[in-house]
Amino acid sequence: MVKAAALPRNETGIATVIGILKQQFGDRLQTGQAIREQHGHTTTWIDNQMPDAVVFPHSTQEVSEIVKTCAAHKVPVIGFGTGTSLEGHVNAPAGGISVDLMQMNQILAVHAEDLDVVVQPGVTREQLNTHLRDQGLFFPIDPGANASLGGMAATRASGTNAVRYGTMKDNVIALEAVMADGEIIRTAQRAKKTSAGYDLTRLLVGSEGTLGLITEITLKLQGIPEAISAARCSFASMDAACQAVMATIQYGIPVARIELLDVIAVRAVNNYSKLDLPESPLLLLEFHGSENGVAEQAEMFGQIAEEFGGTGFDWTGSTEERNKLWQARHDFYWASLQLKPGTTALATDVCVPISRLAECVNAATAKAEELDLFAPLVGHVGDGNFHISPLIDADNAEEVARTEQFVAWLAELAISMDGTCTGEHGIGQGKRAYLTKEIGPATRYMAAIKAALDPDNIMNPGKIL
Amino acid sequence: MVKAAALPRNETGIATVIGILKQQFGDRLQTGQAIREQHGHTTTWIDNQMPDAVVFPHSTQEVSEIVKTCAAHKVPVIGFGTGTSLEGHVNAPAGGISVDLMQMNQILAVHAEDLDVVVQPGVTREQLNTHLRDQGLFFPIDPGANASLGGMAATRASGTNAVRYGTMKDNVIALEAVMADGEIIRTAQRAKKTSAGYDLTRLLVGSEGTLGLITEITLKLQGIPEAISAARCSFASMDAACQAVMATIQYGIPVARIELLDVIAVRAVNNYSKLDLPESPLLLLEFHGSENGVAEQAEMFGQIAEEFGGTGFDWTGSTEERNKLWQARHDFYWASLQLKPGTTALATDVCVPISRLAECVNAATAKAEELDLFAPLVGHVGDGNFHISPLIDADNAEEVARTEQFVAWLAELAISMDGTCTGEHGIGQGKRAYLTKEIGPATRYMAAIKAALDPDNIMNPGKIL
Repeated sequence: MVKAAALPRNETGIATVIGILKQQFGDRLQTGQAIREQHGHTTTWIDNQMPDAVVFPHSTQEVSEIVKTCAAHKVPVIGFGTGTSLEGHVNAPAGGISVDLMQMNQILAVHAEDLDVVVQPGVTREQLNTHLRDQGLFFPIDPGANASLGGMAATRASGTNAVRYGTMKDNVIALEAVMADGEIIRTAQRAKKTSAGYDLTRLLVGSEGTLGLITEITLKLQGIPEAISAARCSFASMDAACQAVMATIQYGIPVARIELLDVIAVRAVNNYSKLDLPESPLLLLEFHGSENGVAEQAEMFGQIAEEFGGTGFDWTGSTEERNKLWQARHDFYWASLQLKPGTTALATDVCVPISRLAECVNAATAKAEELDLFAPLVGHVGDGNFHISPLIDADNAEEVARTEQFVAWLAELAISMDGTCTGEHGIGQGKRAYLTKEIGPATRYMAAIKAALDPDNIMNPGKIL
Repeated sequence: MVKAAALPRNETGIATVIGILKQQFGDRLQTGQAIREQHGHTTTWIDNQMPDAVVFPHSTQEVSEIVKTCAAHKVPVIGFGTGTSLEGHVNAPAGGISVDLMQMNQILAVHAEDLDVVVQPGVTREQLNTHLRDQGLFFPIDPGANASLGGMAATRASGTNAVRYGTMKDNVIALEAVMADGEIIRTAQRAKKTSAGYDLTRLLVGSEGTLGLITEITLKLQGIPEAISAARCSFASMDAACQAVMATIQYGIPVARIELLDVIAVRAVNNYSKLDLPESPLLLLEFHGSENGVAEQAEMFGQIAEEFGGTGFDWTGSTEERNKLWQARHDFYWASLQLKPGTTALATDVCVPISRLAECVNAATAKAEELDLFAPLVGHVGDGNFHISPLIDADNAEEVARTEQFVAWLAELAISMDGTCTGEHGIGQGKRAYLTKEIGPATRYMAAIKAALDPDNIMNPGKIL
């Protein structure tokens, strides 16, 4: 395992705050070892750094009171949703209070006529979409995990649908948040666009709980398309598959999803989901639109795929077949672990301009081989974003070292290609080393904003900066 | 005319800075009365507050040197593009140096394969689109005026195409900017999405030059659609037209533009552009897509329009007819002035959730009548954004007072409907009174960010906050 640095602890403050909150929250303040461990980092290879207590507020007002108590005693506050973040975002390197927002899980208002919805941060993506289905609406952002919408906003999540519908930055209309001093703010009203002052909405989206805790989210919705179809196509090489992706995007086909799986990833989902996809690089696609529109899109893609030697092109409007295919894609994480039982998958997350995609993908797979790492690759390639995930024994120090070398090398490669070390997972603890390499002096202004809005550094300390 | 408050002047600092910059820039530093007046506010009713000098840099490095000189002597720096902003953004209430960025007008790189372009801030929208046309690409944001892209980013501009393509916030990938201390930063690299730290790109977009000067912009591009068609339809009432808009959006028809003109606005464009549109509320639309797609969209809209009693529905794929119609819409400002020669048009800019649009539009036109104001209305109604623009004699104090009453009343009405006082023009000097009414304590955090990034308040003082 990789250890994130511990930060100095304010023991007196922490003890005082726990005492005060216990009085107020009773059983909704927990200090047991198991629950604290569950609220530290539990995914992939960064060591768990558990908080000193976990509190379960039921309202924005309660969140404000918690933060005010912590602010008065300079005690860290760490927001917590489903715990599916990947870069140590929920770790407590200086201890402190984990604020578990999952009991704030009400869908407060669906404005069908305005195509928006107001939710509490503990509402999950699947919960929201189940709720909306009868009204013919859906929320498109799909990071794979059934994450909480508060967490998705906090990490600027995206996923398979982003190529068509954008990321959380594009789909949050307004936020309510509790700032570091406990004040409750609304960043905007519900109008679809605004030029009223600084964009605090987008400043909080992706701030990973380091500037405030998100307590309410107004999200854009989409009408469920009249027709949805899925397609798949195999290619002789990763290069050919990437070229087909580039052409599809450049041609302006409004694909809803376009995902790449390498040979190892195809093998993993074949085994796990009992499929018989050809074991070669694969593109999975989804098209949204009218009946005619999706047929047209699928045909256009089919022509492009043929140009790049695609084989086994097949598209279907059947909901069942489509769900089976996408379920397999979503189960990739579990499928990949079964390729090498007992291992941990370390998901990298680079994103490059699409013109550099083939080059970056090829270099990454070659480097993994060179370092003797077994690393399936999947990607939201319409955006130039992919995850190559070494499967490693986290207790094997030598393998961990090789993986660290790979992660650093890949981040720097992406940066050298005018890309980013993180397309959608965030910086957290795991990617802090690369932020300055990526954007240089801009980090100084991020630090100035952090210092201005959270002068005592109580909001999720040790993350991003 | 309405006077914006003057702020204390730093006479010694200003004189010193002008001396230093004159040495460096020679004839590219101007202090003549005429040029200074041109660089103060020249549009609508806010009084001109001219800068003490205008400087014309040719490079980011020069902008950095100017800002460093101003920072050293605590002298205001006001960015200037085409001067088409509407809320006093370019006024110099404390004097200082206007930095005219229009000689930084190079298109630095077109990445056709990545659908992005890198431009200097003085490149105008039309210049960019003329440059891109041969490559089958375009930049969709169209605020009407042939504004500079730096200015459009700084005010978070949008316009007629925003219903389909979003606003500047959605179309800027990265910025280079000179911050208040003269440091040059890049907010992001060129990947299509990123989760790397705070979203400084979106913080600078819409910051109206109060946090930094934008010196380079990386913009998303679109492929020119295979087919574009235009449609128009008249309605018996504003209410019916608004209902048709709501239904169109809710039905998910991906209109590229959907604009409302009231009877007065139709009369204005008929006179000015020699058209014979029926003198009743009118919707103008544009559809982008494949040949089949645009036909399908037009037909779907036609059915909706019919439901709401629309008449004279007509659509055309002819480029000439389409351009004629949209040119008339774009000439609306000039057309409206001819309705009442010698007057000034004061463009309001509220934006409300679309479910409140009909109510807001009807209340606004009734209130204008009640206050005896002659005020044509046009709107980007797919976003719930409209401009009702009283035509007034700026020297008639009594009429100005009634207009001020109207503007304040309308801003507060929109805010009460969960909307904003400014959908796309920005706060500048003119809307400062409404920002706290709209977002309450959130303005305190905007002020904290401003103080952290520009502690001496030299960047465009007296704007937004």
